[in-house]
Amino acid sequence: MAHTAALNTLKALLATISDLRAAKSVLSWDQQTYMPTGGIGTRANQMGTLSRLVHERSTSAELRSLLDQLDGQLDPETDDGALVRIARRDLEHATKLSADLVERMSHTTAMVDAVWVQARLTGDWPLFAPHLRAIVELQREIAEQYGYTTHPFDALINVDEPGTTKAQIEQMYAELKVGTLPLMKAIGQQQGEDRTRPLHGRFDEARQEQFGMEVIKRFGFDWHRGRQDRAVHPFCTNFSMNDVRLTTRFDPTWLAPAMFGTMHEAGHGMYEQGVAQHFTRSPLAAGCSMGLHESQSRLWENLVGRSRPFWEYFYAPLQNLFPEQLQAVDLDTFYRAINSVQPSFIRVEADELTYNLHTLLRFEVELGLLEGTLAVEDVPAVWNAKVAEYLGITPPNDTLGALQDVHWSAGLFAYFPTYTIGNVLAVQFFDAAVAASPAIPEQIRQGEFGTLHGWLNENIYQHGRKYDPNDLVLRASGRPMETAPYINYLKTKYGQLYKL
Amino acid sequence: MAHTAALNTLKALLATISDLRAAKSVLSWDQQTYMPTGGIGTRANQMGTLSRLVHERSTSAELRSLLDQLDGQLDPETDDGALVRIARRDLEHATKLSADLVERMSHTTAMVDAVWVQARLTGDWPLFAPHLRAIVELQREIAEQYGYTTHPFDALINVDEPGTTKAQIEQMYAELKVGTLPLMKAIGQQQGEDRTRPLHGRFDEARQEQFGMEVIKRFGFDWHRGRQDRAVHPFCTNFSMNDVRLTTRFDPTWLAPAMFGTMHEAGHGMYEQGVAQHFTRSPLAAGCSMGLHESQSRLWENLVGRSRPFWEYFYAPLQNLFPEQLQAVDLDTFYRAINSVQPSFIRVEADELTYNLHTLLRFEVELGLLEGTLAVEDVPAVWNAKVAEYLGITPPNDTLGALQDVHWSAGLFAYFPTYTIGNVLAVQFFDAAVAASPAIPEQIRQGEFGTLHGWLNENIYQHGRKYDPNDLVLRASGRPMETAPYINYLKTKYGQLYKL
Repeated sequence: MAHTAALNTLKALLATISDLRAAKSVLSWDQQTYMPTGGIGTRANQMGTLSRLVHERSTSAELRSLLDQLDGQLDPETDDGALVRIARRDLEHATKLSADLVERMSHTTAMVDAVWVQARLTGDWPLFAPHLRAIVELQREIAEQYGYTTHPFDALINVDEPGTTKAQIEQMYAELKVGTLPLMKAIGQQQGEDRTRPLHGRFDEARQEQFGMEVIKRFGFDWHRGRQDRAVHPFCTNFSMNDVRLTTRFDPTWLAPAMFGTMHEAGHGMYEQGVAQHFTRSPLAAGCSMGLHESQSRLWENLVGRSRPFWEYFYAPLQNLFPEQLQAVDLDTFYRAINSVQPSFIRVEADELTYNLHTLLRFEVELGLLEGTLAVEDVPAVWNAKVAEYLGITPPNDTLGALQDVHWSAGLFAYFPTYTIGNVLAVQFFDAAVAASPAIPEQIRQGEFGTLHGWLNENIYQHGRKYDPNDLVLRASGRPMETAPYINYLKTKYGQLYKL
Repeated sequence: MAHTAALNTLKALLATISDLRAAKSVLSWDQQTYMPTGGIGTRANQMGTLSRLVHERSTSAELRSLLDQLDGQLDPETDDGALVRIARRDLEHATKLSADLVERMSHTTAMVDAVWVQARLTGDWPLFAPHLRAIVELQREIAEQYGYTTHPFDALINVDEPGTTKAQIEQMYAELKVGTLPLMKAIGQQQGEDRTRPLHGRFDEARQEQFGMEVIKRFGFDWHRGRQDRAVHPFCTNFSMNDVRLTTRFDPTWLAPAMFGTMHEAGHGMYEQGVAQHFTRSPLAAGCSMGLHESQSRLWENLVGRSRPFWEYFYAPLQNLFPEQLQAVDLDTFYRAINSVQPSFIRVEADELTYNLHTLLRFEVELGLLEGTLAVEDVPAVWNAKVAEYLGITPPNDTLGALQDVHWSAGLFAYFPTYTIGNVLAVQFFDAAVAASPAIPEQIRQGEFGTLHGWLNENIYQHGRKYDPNDLVLRASGRPMETAPYINYLKTKYGQLYKL
């Protein structure tokens, strides 16, 4: 029973790391919600100290020694076996990069962020280009140090999506192009009226908030173990499965962002709330991957929140909250408004159908940069050509083009595809849930979400990081990730909406 | 220059401790303001981990070795000299108690808190008594381990008020009794009408908040480096001098608590905001002692906020906010209302004049308990007799008597006198400021507080913990602490108010 002692010591060490990470998350949440501006300097020091203490423990010889002692000692199917496996992966992830490279990356991104803000403001790509070049070179180094067999992108995507490869991402996008580009073209030919007009006007913030809170309560968000505050850039964070913090932002002249943003963040939040209680203070207490997490936010935002059954129940309450604005708008018009397809320049404002083309073009640009076949100077031209090809529009400047996202200046490469993985998996999981409980659509029409929430809890939420993403997808849906259900969903939904 | 390296290492270690303490404060603030109830269990773990990491570093051999190397190396008048002196004191304070005693104390208070809540609810002293006995025994052990020459109380008061003794506290109370009991008796003989009536009614919370925020902005509270939130038990905390958090609580039927509570917490907050920037992340970045801190909250709450000059400026704006409630109440009536003297059972609701008798009787009871001349069973009888003697009223039950305060069950002995030290020093400092700048009362009448705030900043705030409390009092006011100015203030103010 020597390994029992080692396991207990390991769990205590991991609990300390988990507590320190949680403390860091509280400080970060506070910084983005309530902290007075004067606090920024000392808060940076506090965050830095907590990061250092986490890093020391996450990369310690003690941790490695404990994991070595436990190597092969536990049944990999058990929770403890999974704990050791995930702790080992996190340790390798935390130690594979040289301290020197981590330091240079951290220093470069800290410096580049301000440059990017300035460059985006003025649309000045040449200002940003040399810094992006430095980041691309660092990304290549990172890929080398993580190691890969076929392509550096494999090493990078593996951080957020363990087990996923560039080849799989390419396959996914190829299928999506074939499956949805004709649909988009057909819709593009009909463009005329702006269908979104009913969503613009004066919408009292308190009423927007009230509606959003009521909706996600019905979804199953547990207000006893979570809350919602306001933030400039909405996010979801958590300090345990029992303390989940949503944030949102209200536009008093536009109904859509807060409404769907609230549902989106609640999807992330319910995932975290659903993680099994006995995983508390362990590395298993988190979502399985970025793509899996996004599948849960998209499922509630799009598959539920932008569906017709949902609004057959909730449109009357919404009209009651905003009678002046919506009394004269019928359900079909409203449903068309929230599902309007319109090629646009900005990814974060894109509709369900065009969204993936935004992430695709970024993926393609990243591949070119990593392979060295695309020079940073040429990114805007390539970007704009792809926007023209995929969306039929041309960005008037780089602020609305290649400079719009924070990701690259933050050192986040191989991240954009996880959004589309989320879209694809959302449909796959929703279909699996409906296959198991065919009454779900009718329940949604009644404002009831217990069966759907229960299925997600049982098949996804509770497992936390216990299973690898590909394994979890297979267990939950009975199939590996596949695009066919997603393409089918888009064709059916938008075929009806645009009478194709 | 060997000591330069040691000093830098010391500062880095103290900065880490400071950051961890700040993180703990953020978590505590969040727990008392926004945390959903479900988060309590995991938050306790997180706080426990941070406490442990603070304790490990605060008691480490490395810290002791660094301080030993620096012993006698630095000019004690310099900031660095003060840093080493205070760090040494904190180290001794943190290490003098045995781990076993700290553990037993922590375990006992954690357990007793729930008992006290229950006992207070039902007025059940016998339920609480055995637990108080355990705490008194622990307090005696603590006093022994800290060490003292004359009386165990000296060891305990020294924690919050370095350099203060039981004899000084007794002297202070003796003078206050002689100076104020006759005044109180004379006022008691006139009692008839309830002067506080204008403060009761319907007072919109948002307007109460608006008024409080505007007032403390005028005081000099820097909203760029602080904010205010709501809490059930209002407090002030800070995560650096640049991030100070006030909390308050609004009673929609009673104007006084939030109004004076806001000024009180802002007094604490301005003290923390005023600490010199170069003390950041060091143990010098805090108030000098509990009594000194309280002097600043009381100064703004009472010397300013309950003064006639203040209201000559601010009463019209208050009336404008609450015209229905106050338009018919003239300034003199309002001034009498906020300074009504009324013997009452509850310390935290006591007026300026009777307040010190509440802390005195607790001090006397604590002495009896520590000396073993008073048995815990007999506390309510002694308590009630003292309330009758000092205030002329008798508590109908122990909920309104000996069970009202959280302090004893939290293990806070020798704490109550610091409130009265604060009252005494508030007047001493205010008088010193006016002696230096005689225009201050007239400026207050104009709603201007810059000169007063500047004097406090210059003479008290900026020094943080650099000087010992007795030293700071002497430097700021030119005299050791003395009760005469305070007694004189009370006699003058209440003599006029009650036409004595």
